[in-house]
Amino acid sequence: MSMPQSWANYGIDLHLDLAGTRVRAGLEAGLRNAVRSGRLAPGTRLPSSRDLAADLRVARNTVADAYGQLVAEGWLTAMTGAGTWVAERQVAAPRPISPKGALAGELRYDLRAGAPASSAFDRRQWISAARAALSAAPEEVFGYPDPRGLPELRSALAGYLARARGVITSADNVIICAGFAHGLALISQVLAERGAKTVAIEGYGHQSHRSLIAAHGLALAPLPVDPSGARPAEPALHGAGAALLTPAHQFPLGTTLAPRRRTAFVDWAVRSGGLIIEDDYDGEFRYDRQPVGALQALAPEHVVYAGTASKSLAPGLRLGWLALPADLTEAVIAAKERSGTHNSVLDQLTLARLITSGGYDRQIRQARLSYRRRRDRLIAALDRYAPAVRLTGIAAGLHAVAELASGDEGDVVARAAKHGVAVEGLNHYAAIEDDTRPALVIGYGRPAEHAFSTAVSRLCAALAGTAAR
Amino acid sequence: MSMPQSWANYGIDLHLDLAGTRVRAGLEAGLRNAVRSGRLAPGTRLPSSRDLAADLRVARNTVADAYGQLVAEGWLTAMTGAGTWVAERQVAAPRPISPKGALAGELRYDLRAGAPASSAFDRRQWISAARAALSAAPEEVFGYPDPRGLPELRSALAGYLARARGVITSADNVIICAGFAHGLALISQVLAERGAKTVAIEGYGHQSHRSLIAAHGLALAPLPVDPSGARPAEPALHGAGAALLTPAHQFPLGTTLAPRRRTAFVDWAVRSGGLIIEDDYDGEFRYDRQPVGALQALAPEHVVYAGTASKSLAPGLRLGWLALPADLTEAVIAAKERSGTHNSVLDQLTLARLITSGGYDRQIRQARLSYRRRRDRLIAALDRYAPAVRLTGIAAGLHAVAELASGDEGDVVARAAKHGVAVEGLNHYAAIEDDTRPALVIGYGRPAEHAFSTAVSRLCAALAGTAAR
Repeated sequence: MSMPQSWANYGIDLHLDLAGTRVRAGLEAGLRNAVRSGRLAPGTRLPSSRDLAADLRVARNTVADAYGQLVAEGWLTAMTGAGTWVAERQVAAPRPISPKGALAGELRYDLRAGAPASSAFDRRQWISAARAALSAAPEEVFGYPDPRGLPELRSALAGYLARARGVITSADNVIICAGFAHGLALISQVLAERGAKTVAIEGYGHQSHRSLIAAHGLALAPLPVDPSGARPAEPALHGAGAALLTPAHQFPLGTTLAPRRRTAFVDWAVRSGGLIIEDDYDGEFRYDRQPVGALQALAPEHVVYAGTASKSLAPGLRLGWLALPADLTEAVIAAKERSGTHNSVLDQLTLARLITSGGYDRQIRQARLSYRRRRDRLIAALDRYAPAVRLTGIAAGLHAVAELASGDEGDVVARAAKHGVAVEGLNHYAAIEDDTRPALVIGYGRPAEHAFSTAVSRLCAALAGTAAR
Repeated sequence: MSMPQSWANYGIDLHLDLAGTRVRAGLEAGLRNAVRSGRLAPGTRLPSSRDLAADLRVARNTVADAYGQLVAEGWLTAMTGAGTWVAERQVAAPRPISPKGALAGELRYDLRAGAPASSAFDRRQWISAARAALSAAPEEVFGYPDPRGLPELRSALAGYLARARGVITSADNVIICAGFAHGLALISQVLAERGAKTVAIEGYGHQSHRSLIAAHGLALAPLPVDPSGARPAEPALHGAGAALLTPAHQFPLGTTLAPRRRTAFVDWAVRSGGLIIEDDYDGEFRYDRQPVGALQALAPEHVVYAGTASKSLAPGLRLGWLALPADLTEAVIAAKERSGTHNSVLDQLTLARLITSGGYDRQIRQARLSYRRRRDRLIAALDRYAPAVRLTGIAAGLHAVAELASGDEGDVVARAAKHGVAVEGLNHYAAIEDDTRPALVIGYGRPAEHAFSTAVSRLCAALAGTAAR
């Protein structure tokens, strides 16, 4: 392990094995850490790939590829012909590290999407189920656990998913994981091992999911999204090893994937051997129509169904599940074992108990009712105080999209902040920076019950300001 | 993604991107999965690296390296000049997958090392701490969590580790993980990223730890172990990026690392920039002398201290912690974020409560007393019924080593099985297969209280049989 002098000049403390085959990975990791830790400050211009390659005595493409990857992950920004910089807005903050999604103190009203109301988590019900589950459990379950997750929970989930979401699976192919991100990391790892190069993603979605896929060495190919959901567009799907979709309720646009598109994606998967990753993050929360069943049922051998307790119970449980195609199950278990990760058996026992006792369904019904009421209050308030705003994506979930009649969404976000409201523009979720529709993504799940009305009226004040212009 | 015809002949369903740079990784993963799933049966002879390389149109070294890695991981066996076979004893079983360490029904008495008594986990105390912790917790903790783990728990642990184990750290450098294996996987990943090639390991230890390090592309260099603990031997340490040690109580030999060796390892780390990974898996359980403080305190910037609740509470909690050198913390957090893994906040809140309320110390004192009594009963029984056996490694922990006067340890293990006792020979833990001392590793923690006496007397019967010969 040695550090060439010239690297030290860039302030990068990087131990590179330049003779090995992991030069690119090492280079990426070194740059990533240097940016994350602040050693490479935002706005810093990086040496050209030609210069750096010469300094490191590696192929220029190796450096160019590493730069490209970090641009895809959001650490760097690049302009063709002009150079590469450390991005101004970084994916993760330097220390002190605060919990993901923590807010600055002044923004008391959190209307960002992606999380449920913390107050919706019924602690008493959980503790009572935990006590019952723990007293009944045989001693063996407290030992070193099954790498797939607790059999009791996998059985309970296989039944629940069949009943509630139409998923076709068995306990053997259900794997418990620490939330959707963990499941996505495991699948990305298996895809990379199997030689996949690209994952098609929806043109709007979580930046954190995109970063996670890219961190496993996979390129991202964005699919256009319109009112019928993601478009099975050939340029993006061509040669993709997998497509990550939110069929029931596109995140964040809120549309449902049209039936002909569901079929088209499944046809693509069957034809090409590609994998569909179905992120069913809030499939249980549908208000106006029948729930849309899981796409997985169309082709269980070509779709990974991914569900989570993050919206139905609490993100802090870090409980998610994958229903896997049989021929993927072993590889995902192997990846999970390699990562040494398991969920707490106590939470698994408790959730299994909640599901089999009917408590989980009850909790979802209650939460659905409460979120529906919030949605109706949001609709009514916007109708009255910001009539120029068009609210879409409201049939399901914990968030909606407010399309602005005019103006810049960044201005509205800034104005909302002045009113103490945290909310994000649609652009925040865009995979490609060419969005032209000014819109806000409003998460109505997060605020505590007592703060919801104030949050909405402050948001309306910020929006009314725009409409009036 | 394509599969050359010839691969199909080997029955390996492998999607290989032969043009890419991940050929070796893909080849390894494909072979690993084929062996794991049983598609390549134990005893199957593999094509020579020359033939396979020609079929796949890759360099012969690529195949030879992949074979070598899988031999290191235990999937394959090789004899120089004679060929490569699928190993008879595989690292993991094909499905149906049973929990790690599950026993065949006939072996009712489990004296294998590495796990505590499941009955020692005080469910009532846990539930009561959980209820108290949950009612007191602010709502925010149920949201998406801090990637390091809950601040409350990290603070509690920093205090506890300083007090109980002499560790020098702060809450900022403590990271919560899902048990030791998860921590080791994260560190292995960071080491590989930073260009490390080799990890020195103790000549005796857990095969699962060795496999996990190897699965991250790192070679293993075994250190000899003698009654003074692991020897800081140059051939193994030379060029190693890290050394994995069990200083307080060598696993499984039970010796304590001698002070001059502690210093020698620390000197090596400071001099070479290598990292010491201190696996303090049962440091709390010391019976006859003062506890041996953590080696970490000698050089906090060169040692990762790793602890776990698996022995003190229950493995099923999947709660472990790392106290990291400051310059490693960011990289480990990044690796953890990339893997999408987090612990349940509920268990973290509960453990924090247990620690700050003194319940954790109480639980450890009780468990220590109970394990010490078991150890004393084991010593007395062997003294009386198998006097030819010499018991060592008894000053601490949940296991001891029974050195056999003569005979083959495999025979004794088989005879014990006939008596319904599961126990493992020392060779089971050897990193190099050249062990000549016949010995058993006896884990006295596992059996339920009511079954302990029978387990020991049956073991004695099996051992007495040997001694009589």
